[in-house]
Order: sequence, then C-alpha cells, then structure tokens
Amino acid sequence: MKKRSFLPAVLALASLLASSSAVAQSGLGISPAVEKANAKAAPGLRADPLFWWVGMVNPKLQVLIHAPGIAGSTAALAAYPGVTLDGQQKLESPNYLVLNLTISPSAKPGQLKFTFGGAKKQTFSYELRARGTEAGRVQGLTTADMIYFVMPDRFSNGDPKNDVIKGTQVSRVARDSMYARHGGDLRGIANHFDYIKQLGATAIWSAPLVENDMPKASYHGYAVTDCYRTDPRYGSNEEYAQYVKSAHGQGLKIVQDIVLNHWGSRHYLFLDQPAKDWFHQFPTFFRSNFRDAAFNDPHGSEYDFNQFNRGWFDTTMPDVNQDNPLVATYIIQNFLWWVEYTGLDAYRIDTYSYSAPKFLMQFGEAMAAQYPSLSMFGETWVQGTAQQAYFAKNILPPVDGFKSNLPGVTDFQMQYAINEALTKDAGWTEGINKIYYTAQADWLYQDPMRNVLFLDNHDVSRFYSVIGEDLAKYKMGIAWLLTYRGIPQLYYGTEVLMKNFSNPDGKVREDFPGGWAGDKENFFTTRNGARAEAFDFVSKLANYRKTHPVVHAGKLMHFIPQDGVYTYFRYDETGTVMVMMNSGKDEKTVDMARFAERLRGFSSGVDVMTGAVVSDLKSVKVPGRTAWVVELRK
Amino acid sequence: MKKRSFLPAVLALASLLASSSAVAQSGLGISPAVEKANAKAAPGLRADPLFWWVGMVNPKLQVLIHAPGIAGSTAALAAYPGVTLDGQQKLESPNYLVLNLTISPSAKPGQLKFTFGGAKKQTFSYELRARGTEAGRVQGLTTADMIYFVMPDRFSNGDPKNDVIKGTQVSRVARDSMYARHGGDLRGIANHFDYIKQLGATAIWSAPLVENDMPKASYHGYAVTDCYRTDPRYGSNEEYAQYVKSAHGQGLKIVQDIVLNHWGSRHYLFLDQPAKDWFHQFPTFFRSNFRDAAFNDPHGSEYDFNQFNRGWFDTTMPDVNQDNPLVATYIIQNFLWWVEYTGLDAYRIDTYSYSAPKFLMQFGEAMAAQYPSLSMFGETWVQGTAQQAYFAKNILPPVDGFKSNLPGVTDFQMQYAINEALTKDAGWTEGINKIYYTAQADWLYQDPMRNVLFLDNHDVSRFYSVIGEDLAKYKMGIAWLLTYRGIPQLYYGTEVLMKNFSNPDGKVREDFPGGWAGDKENFFTTRNGARAEAFDFVSKLANYRKTHPVVHAGKLMHFIPQDGVYTYFRYDETGTVMVMMNSGKDEKTVDMARFAERLRGFSSGVDVMTGAVVSDLKSVKVPGRTAWVVELRK
Repeated sequence: MKKRSFLPAVLALASLLASSSAVAQSGLGISPAVEKANAKAAPGLRADPLFWWVGMVNPKLQVLIHAPGIAGSTAALAAYPGVTLDGQQKLESPNYLVLNLTISPSAKPGQLKFTFGGAKKQTFSYELRARGTEAGRVQGLTTADMIYFVMPDRFSNGDPKNDVIKGTQVSRVARDSMYARHGGDLRGIANHFDYIKQLGATAIWSAPLVENDMPKASYHGYAVTDCYRTDPRYGSNEEYAQYVKSAHGQGLKIVQDIVLNHWGSRHYLFLDQPAKDWFHQFPTFFRSNFRDAAFNDPHGSEYDFNQFNRGWFDTTMPDVNQDNPLVATYIIQNFLWWVEYTGLDAYRIDTYSYSAPKFLMQFGEAMAAQYPSLSMFGETWVQGTAQQAYFAKNILPPVDGFKSNLPGVTDFQMQYAINEALTKDAGWTEGINKIYYTAQADWLYQDPMRNVLFLDNHDVSRFYSVIGEDLAKYKMGIAWLLTYRGIPQLYYGTEVLMKNFSNPDGKVREDFPGGWAGDKENFFTTRNGARAEAFDFVSKLANYRKTHPVVHAGKLMHFIPQDGVYTYFRYDETGTVMVMMNSGKDEKTVDMARFAERLRGFSSGVDVMTGAVVSDLKSVKVPGRTAWVVELRK
Repeated sequence: MKKRSFLPAVLALASLLASSSAVAQSGLGISPAVEKANAKAAPGLRADPLFWWVGMVNPKLQVLIHAPGIAGSTAALAAYPGVTLDGQQKLESPNYLVLNLTISPSAKPGQLKFTFGGAKKQTFSYELRARGTEAGRVQGLTTADMIYFVMPDRFSNGDPKNDVIKGTQVSRVARDSMYARHGGDLRGIANHFDYIKQLGATAIWSAPLVENDMPKASYHGYAVTDCYRTDPRYGSNEEYAQYVKSAHGQGLKIVQDIVLNHWGSRHYLFLDQPAKDWFHQFPTFFRSNFRDAAFNDPHGSEYDFNQFNRGWFDTTMPDVNQDNPLVATYIIQNFLWWVEYTGLDAYRIDTYSYSAPKFLMQFGEAMAAQYPSLSMFGETWVQGTAQQAYFAKNILPPVDGFKSNLPGVTDFQMQYAINEALTKDAGWTEGINKIYYTAQADWLYQDPMRNVLFLDNHDVSRFYSVIGEDLAKYKMGIAWLLTYRGIPQLYYGTEVLMKNFSNPDGKVREDFPGGWAGDKENFFTTRNGARAEAFDFVSKLANYRKTHPVVHAGKLMHFIPQDGVYTYFRYDETGTVMVMMNSGKDEKTVDMARFAERLRGFSSGVDVMTGAVVSDLKSVKVPGRTAWVVELRK
C-alpha cells in the first residue's frame, strides 16, 4: 500500500483497516496544496465525501467535486444498478461541481464511474462501501460511563515520527511554547488506555482530531482545514479508525469533539471558496460577541443575533453559512461519514449555540435517524438553567421555530454551582445551595441524566486551583462528580492535581507529566503524597460507581440544604446511597428525621471510601469539608 | 341605618352605598365574639358569603352556615323561582352546615328564606343582589398604568376615630412602635388621591384591607381573621366600596392585595374549625421552609414540598388546606365576592407559590371566567427567571399537572437586576448586564409586558438605601422603572427618598411624613432639595409616560451592553424612545452604528427630562451614572 510521503508511519499498535482502494486513498484528506501528488484516477480532482456506503438510511448523497475548471464539465454516470445521478449544480467558483445521487437500498458496494465531458475530458471512480459491522460500533454513552477528556497534543507523544509533518504550516514542536505543537498523538493516548481504565474512566473524549493545518495554535484542533482528514500529527485516518477499534476492544468508548459552525481560514474550501455564500462574509472583520443570549432573545436586535451567530469566532476561523442547504448537507454528511468510517460512540459538539438554528435541528435529526445509538452532547457555555435547557432536549414548545433535539449538554450551570459550593459560604442561594437550585431547575429538561457533569475543562481554570489547592475540597468535588445525576467528565490531569488558572487558556492545557519520553516526572506510573491520594480517591470511587449502578442510574432525591449541609440520595430497587456534603469548615450534627422517606428500611450505613460504619441513622456527625458517600444497609 | 358600635363613622368623602338590608348587615364581618350583638334575622347565625348576586357566570353557590349546633338541623328553602337547594353537608364541627345552591340565570334579586329544622328551629334570610353596573368597575391594569403601593396603616391617618376599635385585640395606636398600629386608613389614602395623581400614578395597591384582629403586628394585614370584612381600623366594607368608587371617579384604579394560603390564627374559622382538614395540622409547629423551589423540584422530597407548601407561614398564620374542595370553593367565592362587591380592578396575590398547585389553577380559572378584565399578579419572590416564569402564564406545557394561569408576576428577577446594575460593576453577566440577561429570558413568558416592575416594596430594603443614597443612581432606577417593559410599581415614599434596610422589615414600613396631623414634616406638600428633585423626576417622567404610549406599550428592543452602557428602545408606528443607561462613573462615547435598525429614519433626539437636543445620532457622549431618555425625531 503506497502512502503519501507526509503521512505518518503505521502505528505499531494498529493493524490497519484494509480500505486501500486507489480511489479511497485519492480522497484521503488531500488538501489542494498536495493534490498533485495524488489522485490517480483523476489527477487534481477531489470528491467530498471521500467515499460513501450502501444501505444508509438517507438514499440521497451530495458529492462535491473540486478540480480546476470542473464547472465547465458535465458529469455522466456509467450504468450502476440502484444508483442514479439525479442532477448536477455549478457554483460561483469554476472549480466545483455538485453531484446529486440517489443510492437505493438495493445498490451493492463497488465503484461508480463518472465521466466529465467538456474542454478537458476526465474520468473518476467513486467508491461505495459496505457498512461496518464489527462489534462495539457506535455504543453511545450512558450514566454508567465516565469520560476522560484529553487535549491530544498535550497528553502523550506516542509516535515522535509524526511530530512534524513536511508540507504543513508548522515545522517544529516546541514544548516550551504554550501555543506551539508539543507532539501528543493518538498512539500516545492508546499507550495509556490502561491508565485511563485504572482511573475508572470508560470513555475518552479528545479535542478535535481533524486536520488543523494552521500556522499558529493549530494544537487545539478547533480550526479544521480538512473535514475529511485527521491531523497527520495525531495519525492518519486509518490509524484513527484503528484507535477507535482498539479502544472498543479494551472496553473504552470514543467521544469525538466536532465543530459545526466555523473552520480554519486555511480550509481548502475557504482558500478556494465554492461560492461567497458558503461563509458569512463581512466588509471588515466582524468578531462574534460570544453572547448565546442573542440566539433566542425576544427583545434582541438583528445586529446582535448576526454578530453572535454569524460573526467569526476569530480572525482565523471563518463562520460557515449553514443556512446554505449545500453547506448544511456537506457538514451533515461529513459527520455521518466519521461515525460510519470509525464506529465512534459519541459526538461532543463545540460552540453548539453558534450554529444556525434550523441547521442544528437538521443536523440532530440526520444523526439520530442514521445512528440512534450515537450519543451527542453540546457545549453550552451559557448563563442560566433555562438557557442551557433551551439548547437541550427539553419540555419547551418550539420557540420561534427552534426546538433543540440535542440529547445532552456540557453542564456548565452545574460546574458554576460546584465551584461556588466549594469557594463561597452557604447563603440562601449561594455556596452549596447553588447546587440545590441548579438541580431543581432540571424540570426543564427531558432527561437531565444525559447532561455531562464536569469540574473543569480546557477552557476554564483547573479545579484544583479554583478551590485553592485544598485536598478536602477536591475530594468533595470528585465525590459529587461521581455520584450526582448525569455523566461525569474528568479533564486530563485533574486526577493528579494539575493546576493553573485559564488566563491564558494555554495554562490549563499543559503536557501531562510522563507523556513524553524523558519527562522528569511520570504521573502515569509514579504519584506521591497528595497526588497519589487524589488519584486513588478518583479511582476507588469511579470503580465503585461501575459496580454499583444505583450511584449513576438510580433516581436522585435531594433535600434543601441546611446550615451548609446538602444531602442527596441515589436509590433504586437494589439499594440506596446517601451523599452528605458539608461545605462548612466545622463538623455538623445532622438530625436525619427529615430524610425518613429515603432512610426507611435501613438501619446503618458504610462509608464507601473508608469502610467506616455509620451505625446511627437518627443523627450523624459529619466532619467539615466532607462529602460522605454512604451505602445504606438494611 | 343602625351601625354596630365598633364600626367607624361614615367617611366624610363617602356617600355610602345603599346596601342596607338587615340581612346584609347581619353578615357584614361578624366575628364570633361579636355575633351576639348582631344578626337580627337569625341570632348567632352567620353565612359566608355574606350575600350573593344573581347572574353570576357560575350558577353554583356554596353557603357556609355557622351557628351553635346548626349541624343538628336540616335546612329547607322556601320556594324561590330559579333557585334550588341541591344539598347540604355536615362537617366535623356541630356548628357548621354547608348549603349547596343553584342560582339559575333567570333568578331575580331578593331574599332566600331558609328554615333550619331540628332541636331549635331557626329561620334565616339570604340576600341575592343585582350585580353592580356603575362605570369604571373592574378595569384591570395595562402597561399604561403605574401602581403606587402603600401600607394602609402607615400612609396617612384620615380618620383618627377609627384608630382604636373597641372589642378588637389591640387597644392603642403607638407610632413609636414598629409593629403596633399607627392609625393609617382608607380615608387617609383617599385624602391623598391628588398627591398620587400628581406623582403620575394611576393605580393604588394597598396591603390587605381585610380584618386582621390579631394581638400583634396586625398592622401588616397578611393575617386575615375575617375574609368578609375590612379591618375596621381602615374603614367599613361600605367605606371600602365607596373608596373604590371614589378612586374610579378620579381616574385611579384599585389593586387589592390578597392572601390565598394562610389566615390569622384568630380567624373565626380557625378558632372554631369546621373540620380538622380545613387546615394543615402538625403535631408540633411546623414552619414553612420558604423555598418555592420545592413546589416543582423533580428531585424533591415529599418532606420539603410539605414543609414549603403546607408548613405554616408563622406561628400566628395557620396554613389553609386548599386541597379540601369546600375550602377551595370558600376562598374562590370570597374573592369573587370582593370584586363584585367593590368593583376593584386587580388582585395582587401574596405568597402565590405557597398555595396548592391544583387550587391555584382553579382560582385563576374562576376569576378569569367571571371577570375577564380583572388583572391579577402574584408575588413571586423566587430565584431565577425560569422559576418566576413557571408561576406566570408561560410557554411551558403542564409540569406534573401544574400549568399556571396567572397573568402577571411581581418581577423580582428584574428587581434583583436593577439593584445589581446600580451597585455592582459591569461584568460578563454582572452589574448592568444582569438586566440584559434577565430580559432575554422573557422568551419563557406568554406576555412579559404583564409583569410588575419595582425597585422596592414592603419586604425589601428601600431602593434609596440600597443604592447608597445616590441621587444619580436613583434617577437611573426611576428612568428604567418608567420606560422598561411591564407595569411599574412605586413603593410609597420612594418618590421622596424614604430610606432604610429591611432588617427588620418594620424599618421599611415607616409612616409617610405628613400623613398624620401634627407631623413635623409634610412631604405631601413640602419637599426640599434632593427630595423635591426626586419627586419631580418621578412625576415628570410618569406624566410623560402617560402621554406617550410608545414608552409603555411600544415594543422593546435592547442591545447587548458594552462597556457598562445598556441601550434599549421602545418603539411603535408613532415613534421611538431610546434609553441609554451608563452604569459606570465616567462619561462614555457610544458609537451608534450598531443601533441602525432602530435609528433609521431619525436624525436627532430630545432628552425628555432636560429638553436638551441630541443632534448627532452617529456618536453620542453619555455622562456617567445616567439613564438618558431620548425621544427620537425625524
């Protein structure tokens, strides 16, 4: 199998997928700059999606052909049973042609043969594959999962040979530079599957893995330059598919981070734009105001909505016009493609509210129609529970035509709450009471158990710093994260007390010590003192959680906090676990009488973390700064 | 017309309603203690409602008869065309009998003659009146209104003769005691209709006027002891009816403050309880937790719900069991009665969320069915816009069977926001930005224009104190109150800079200076310095508001605050008014380009308060701590 020179060597861990047809390769992430080196079947021609499958739910397929002057041609499809070329469409640029195909359920895998007539006659093969059937594909997430979130450039460098890829915009790794590439990759993550499992996580979310061939800050992954290609610094498409398969083989699920609304300014579709209306264009640079509130403001101006929803995320991140049906279809097909190609389990959707309202609904429908088991949760870095619920599946009727079909959200409201609980004294609504009030608002969601809980992530200050590097508070946060309603997400390094504030954000995206050969410290293998205590606490509770479904799948009942003590229960027919969080410094004596409806039938309890017996359920003394996790006993 | 000795003398301003039948009088607010002195037709017998009307929407009427041993009797109704006695019901107490009547649309006014057979035969006349038809009845409120809210005991003493009423629990007035009665009354308010009109208000809301014959703190009015009687310290029922009529005659509307969920512990129905299940009873005193969140908490316990919704408001305020259909009907009829009897325009409903969910819906339905023009708004001293909207008419589907039909709410969320805007620096969501975020959440309401805006009220710290007695901030608050969406409410004395913090609450319920003969200061007539400036500011803007409907009825469009400056517009086909609030200390230059969609067609503006011309709409300089109200000109 011939590999393009800039593609990384085959991963040691991977036996590559046997997807080696010339056509498939010709399409594998070829940026215009390197097209000449490839595309055997039709030199200089690229088709998106790179290939497709027979037996997809939607028989329609829109193929975007990119080749110099291709709009001057007319395409013809050689007879292929079950496949018809319904139409073709020229765009503003002479270099694009859109082909609209129908692939009937009866069509078989094979090669579609196209001929482009016109000034220069070309032929082109397009592959229709058989859909993947291996075990473990598209498992989705449940509350049984715990997500481990990594920045792939910063977690571990498993393959130094792919650190610098010739022909890309960045010619070096520089670990001492916050915004440079550091060399982390897929193999680095895969090398630590065991560590992640030991921690108790069951799923891995990495920041986007698609090509970010940008000259600056390409490490973060949110400025895609080729929607159909993994970034070669992480690995090839084939290596990514193998990575997913390998994870599945080890009982780990894969959450892919995706961006729907903006691309990098070196995206090949931006450098040679199919048409002006593929992007939101402005006379001068127009940055988003980052106010999701403008999305659904009944008193809002067109100006504010446009700036929010259509303004650019950054000078290097043009905003994509999803109101253009061709663009909408392009994006939707792209994300169907990645699921089918890899069998990944979930999408985490970046900047969810920045997409066009109608598009968001179309996207969600298309994904759910094809992959009912695929999990999706969106970034909702918004203000207020109503606003967050507005962007999730909720109990609301459509508002101005918008009705979210997004199953889950990153639960920022809960993150605000837990941070406040551990840093502010309890007041009527403040401090730990904020958790109570935030959960109370769950009535707005269809299913708040699908919300993704977290203490920190790549955009906010690290939890351990926020709580003043206080190990007691740390344990409270972890205990809450792993016993509260929803799907917990842990940010890489939080388990070993990595710290820093998020200004600038690079500070919270530091390398995981031990991820690089020669690192002075290796937290994968050697953890001392507080770091060991923290890791062991997470690991013990996460593994307890795995074997005690009541802690994640049980109902939640909570009681109004009193005197800084917040008590909740997870319960089902198999048992009851009580969590009592004392946010104050001092020990509190808690009269348990008001919890009678949950204590009934139980006579004692066991502290899950220490094994200590709680023999009296009438009144307990809970130490200051503690979240007790107590399994009740008959 | 014979008056009971403890009833106040006839108001000088009032020509009393001619509702003087013996029966009507026998029912007029007779507490058990004084029953003997009255009830000519049937000594010792009381009927609630005191009387009724023909031609009501609901033909059913439940009459609660109270008399010693009456349950031993069987009632018979003498033939009366169009009226039937459908049934009668005994309760636990031997002293009650419930009569269920149907009054068909064809029934004429007159006296129903009942005979009670049994050990002691009694007869009893019950009056059916013709419904009121005078002009100005039940006008309801619109955004054109401005509500002036008074504590009737603390505003003005118009009739010193009713200060102490013989036979009541309180034998003195004591103006130097925060919780004693001070002597204010209906005549005091009526004496100052001109003042209220001069201020620009169009409606008067007083704290409850019903009898509060309690030994302590009876001045506040929220511990009713007789649902069918005004407190004699304020005036008689007839005087109240006349007060409403008189207000209507002067172009003022009347908002009555009512309590649905709790009564005073000296209520005659609590002293001699019809049945245990008329009240929420507990083995020991069980105070409400005051957490409305428990009303609709999907994770809530029965315990917390019960404590919130059924616990007592205070040791002296038993919680009424509205889930008892007899009680629900008793309350609903009571509030239909007061509207029909007086023609009042609106109900402000105290402690709205403390009532039983099903009852709240029944209550709202019954009021709206009978009086479509009646306005109603409820106290929603809650946390968060979603929670507040939950208790109003909103876009939500029923949640666990509850769907509010309350047209308006006291907009506490906006009060939190304006206070924060004037006391905290602007941040992403903090300071003046909180107003923006709060209004953005209006998408949850069916009609946020029905929300009642306020800067302060009888339960919270006075606005002028909250803002540090800063007149510039004061004017910003007033300008906002009178130009923002909703119906503004001003708390008595705020217009003359009365101050104090609400701990204890008596401090914010002080006497209005000049309301009592001999007061050293009289702010009704003499206002100097800042006080004069404040009053004139309110008066000028409120009167401008009256003559410029766009300011209250126009659409609202606002823009995301920038640099501490929040800009909004009220607009309709007649014109546009721009309000620009600069919450910072320093002058700001504002580029007006982003407001183009509202400035289009206008070339200049006039500062409504100063008359100064704003000649350049491209860029303006707005001084620090200012809310500019600018009428745009073509």
